[in-house]
Amino acid sequence: MDSPSIAKTPSPPYFSVIFTSRRSGADPEYDATAARMIELARDQPGFLGIESARNEGGLGVTVSYWESEESIRAWKSNSEHQVAQERGKTEWYAAYRLRVAKVTREYGTKDY
Amino acid sequence: MDSPSIAKTPSPPYFSVIFTSRRSGADPEYDATAARMIELARDQPGFLGIESARNEGGLGVTVSYWESEESIRAWKSNSEHQVAQERGKTEWYAAYRLRVAKVTREYGTKDY
Repeated sequence: MDSPSIAKTPSPPYFSVIFTSRRSGADPEYDATAARMIELARDQPGFLGIESARNEGGLGVTVSYWESEESIRAWKSNSEHQVAQERGKTEWYAAYRLRVAKVTREYGTKDY
Repeated sequence: MDSPSIAKTPSPPYFSVIFTSRRSGADPEYDATAARMIELARDQPGFLGIESARNEGGLGVTVSYWESEESIRAWKSNSEHQVAQERGKTEWYAAYRLRVAKVTREYGTKDY
């Protein structure tokens, strides 16, 4: 579920989904599904970017960025995504937390 | 800069700082400073929790949670933290992005 780069987001305000999880164990199907979900998210209306990292210890933090809360709800209800969410709950995650947050300001290095 | 667990945050609303970075290279001093900054953050007024992960490829996502925007500003201006921020800019990070976001809702597994 790696994202190689820092997301290029527009000027705030916009919305973010902070998804933090602990994996139950290794499963090659998880990696394939996670990669597919990133690909699928990129095609959704209102998608602005995604950043993801996971420690060797199993804790992962994925942040996706969206134009509106409505676009977040639509992505949550995407049918292929819902199948993946269900497998996440029952097979892949020992625990997770999902937070929706409105980005109000940002800054950083000129190039990123 | 690992955080072993998912943050136990109170009911929203509260605030988050999403810090995404690409490391320039390996430096043992970075690891020590990152661990120290987490320890120091925990002592700040308004601190609610922190989650952090970094890929082997070097992309890191750290999210800290705070009671108010004022507590975020106070942490940013902490003198020991400012020294670390400066070294981050000049030595440790090839690029970074910092986003401040207001968490409005959250959900997840019962235990986490």
